Amino acid sequence: MTSSSVPSAAASPLTTEDYAARMERASRAAADAGLAGLVVTPGPDLSWLCGYRPTAETERLTALLLAPGREPRLLAPTLEKPDAEHAAGAGAVRISGWTDGEDPYRAVGDLLGGVEGRYGVSDNAWALHLLGLQRTFPGSRYAAFTEVLPMLRAVKDAHEVERLAAAGAAADATFEEIAQVRFAGRRESEIAADLAASLLRNGHSQVDFTVVGSGPNGANPHHEAGERVIEEGDMVVLDFGGLKDGYGSDTTRTVHVGEPTAEERKVHDVVREAQQAAFEAVRPGVACQEIDRVARQVIKEAGYGEYFIHRTGHGIGVTTHEPPYMVEGEHLPLVPGMCFSIEPGIYLPGRFGVRVEDIVVCTESGGRRLNNTAREMRVVA
Amino acid sequence: MTSSSVPSAAASPLTTEDYAARMERASRAAADAGLAGLVVTPGPDLSWLCGYRPTAETERLTALLLAPGREPRLLAPTLEKPDAEHAAGAGAVRISGWTDGEDPYRAVGDLLGGVEGRYGVSDNAWALHLLGLQRTFPGSRYAAFTEVLPMLRAVKDAHEVERLAAAGAAADATFEEIAQVRFAGRRESEIAADLAASLLRNGHSQVDFTVVGSGPNGANPHHEAGERVIEEGDMVVLDFGGLKDGYGSDTTRTVHVGEPTAEERKVHDVVREAQQAAFEAVRPGVACQEIDRVARQVIKEAGYGEYFIHRTGHGIGVTTHEPPYMVEGEHLPLVPGMCFSIEPGIYLPGRFGVRVEDIVVCTESGGRRLNNTAREMRVVA
Repeated sequence: MTSSSVPSAAASPLTTEDYAARMERASRAAADAGLAGLVVTPGPDLSWLCGYRPTAETERLTALLLAPGREPRLLAPTLEKPDAEHAAGAGAVRISGWTDGEDPYRAVGDLLGGVEGRYGVSDNAWALHLLGLQRTFPGSRYAAFTEVLPMLRAVKDAHEVERLAAAGAAADATFEEIAQVRFAGRRESEIAADLAASLLRNGHSQVDFTVVGSGPNGANPHHEAGERVIEEGDMVVLDFGGLKDGYGSDTTRTVHVGEPTAEERKVHDVVREAQQAAFEAVRPGVACQEIDRVARQVIKEAGYGEYFIHRTGHGIGVTTHEPPYMVEGEHLPLVPGMCFSIEPGIYLPGRFGVRVEDIVVCTESGGRRLNNTAREMRVVA
Repeated sequence: MTSSSVPSAAASPLTTEDYAARMERASRAAADAGLAGLVVTPGPDLSWLCGYRPTAETERLTALLLAPGREPRLLAPTLEKPDAEHAAGAGAVRISGWTDGEDPYRAVGDLLGGVEGRYGVSDNAWALHLLGLQRTFPGSRYAAFTEVLPMLRAVKDAHEVERLAAAGAAADATFEEIAQVRFAGRRESEIAADLAASLLRNGHSQVDFTVVGSGPNGANPHHEAGERVIEEGDMVVLDFGGLKDGYGSDTTRTVHVGEPTAEERKVHDVVREAQQAAFEAVRPGVACQEIDRVARQVIKEAGYGEYFIHRTGHGIGVTTHEPPYMVEGEHLPLVPGMCFSIEPGIYLPGRFGVRVEDIVVCTESGGRRLNNTAREMRVVA
């Protein structure tokens, strides 16, 4: 354990007042953005705003409807209304049902007071539903949350940062455990299973990914974990995370089975320096794309520019991947409370890959890491 | 085991030619529907058409692009291209990558040949992406697959029906196993775990739901399984299913712990008769809503109309719930090869619920059940 700050108890649950405050904040943000209201469908927006996660995603419309000056309303299929009534934030919203055979889009319009205008919709709302709204209300227009309210979920409050820090500390504890296990002679999938078990043991309720990219597999940044048997001399990318008390973890360390070569050391050093430089660039007002540029510049100057083939980072919160993105073209400024990954990498096709990733929160005075295991390449057995 | 037709081996995998034929059929159907092409995003449409299931759903656009007379193209984030290249149907489609910072909607337009027109999009395509396409190509229009190509996935070929029959037989074997276990004194969640284990043992690769609704919980058709301890005298709704060899199962039987009362018997008889009547109504050309009406009429005549609070059925295929829906207002005619559930129920609030469900395929000569366990109420211990 490198961290002395692992909370020993689960975080206290969010209250009806917490959810009411989030919905009120969202309504205000919508008004400020010139929107007539918000149509929030199942997924991270809905669970963040009212604590409701339908058990199954179906084609039956469920939508939270927020509009400035109006009471929050949740429309759910009548069948699923009892579930919705048990949601953590149910006390802060009035719930209505619609029955098979009724038109749910008309019901949305009624609950929004029939006001035509520009509405924000969840990024992942089904096209079926958006088309239904567009057809039913041709006088209204729609825009994705990411585009019109990019700051709403991206900027975390102190309670949320605390939860993300606890998830990060649990992921750190997981790394310290995995660094002790035997790698040589075992399959990637076995190490992945160890990672999942360790995340759960360290308080995660859900494991989202356990990437184990050994040798040439590490050169595919999207490789998960396969049947390859790890050998002495392999570089191994370990990228893992999930949810703890409703908030995400995501960290990457690259380890080496036995002593690395000079080239392997060099590549790892370049990635680590790129990660450090990007971290040091974090401060309020800096554009997201600048974080990407800083990391990319270090790797480019070392001659590996063409082998850094993905963006530098992504936001994290009630999901493990969400806006804002640290990518060229993202002009959004960093704001205190934004939490995101910084994860540059170098991928040498057919040979090996290296990635180093921490979750970082932007504070008034700069970045603060929520992952704190050593970033030097660890030698494992 | 009531079924003598449980296949002993896994179904043979679909070939490149199978996927090529599906994509060709989809392109032709699009042309016949007056569409310029199809935009297919991750989910059942994509896996049905080209065998690709991205490991994680992200905000990065992945889309299969089909247009009459054009080669099928798959656009994927460059990071995920290696995964896409391993999809079962990858040999039947040309794959292109787009990189973070590029505009994926422009890329979609290029791959579709820049033709303006009306396009079909997957029902579950993200609003973010549909809005991106609408913004980038204001001269084009979009419609959900369910609305413009309702028959495409709904009508199964002989190979698909065979797989659905095998999944149904495995679900039947699961019911026969669960009817032997002890119910009284055990929690719903324990029976649910037994159901899941049995589905897997009987060849399922994925369990989608294991509803155990005992006593008053059975009166909530959306109840899954909780910590309630099942007692002597309880009615218990068991509704379970998942995927076997890529195709779905979904069956419901209602059992009784010990001897039922006369009223419980009567309610169960009404539901069973409604299910039988709806089954007998199945034949080509009958509208989906007619199947719902027939079941509803039986229940209404018995005086329980207000307690049948959901539609009568849904399609099944590479997912366990998909169009067509057996619901008032669905005028789509049944066609040989359509596979769907018939699952009427009666739900007496605070007391108990009853549901009986089989998967049925429409053939030239009428319905054929893919679930074949006895539909009479089973008494369990």
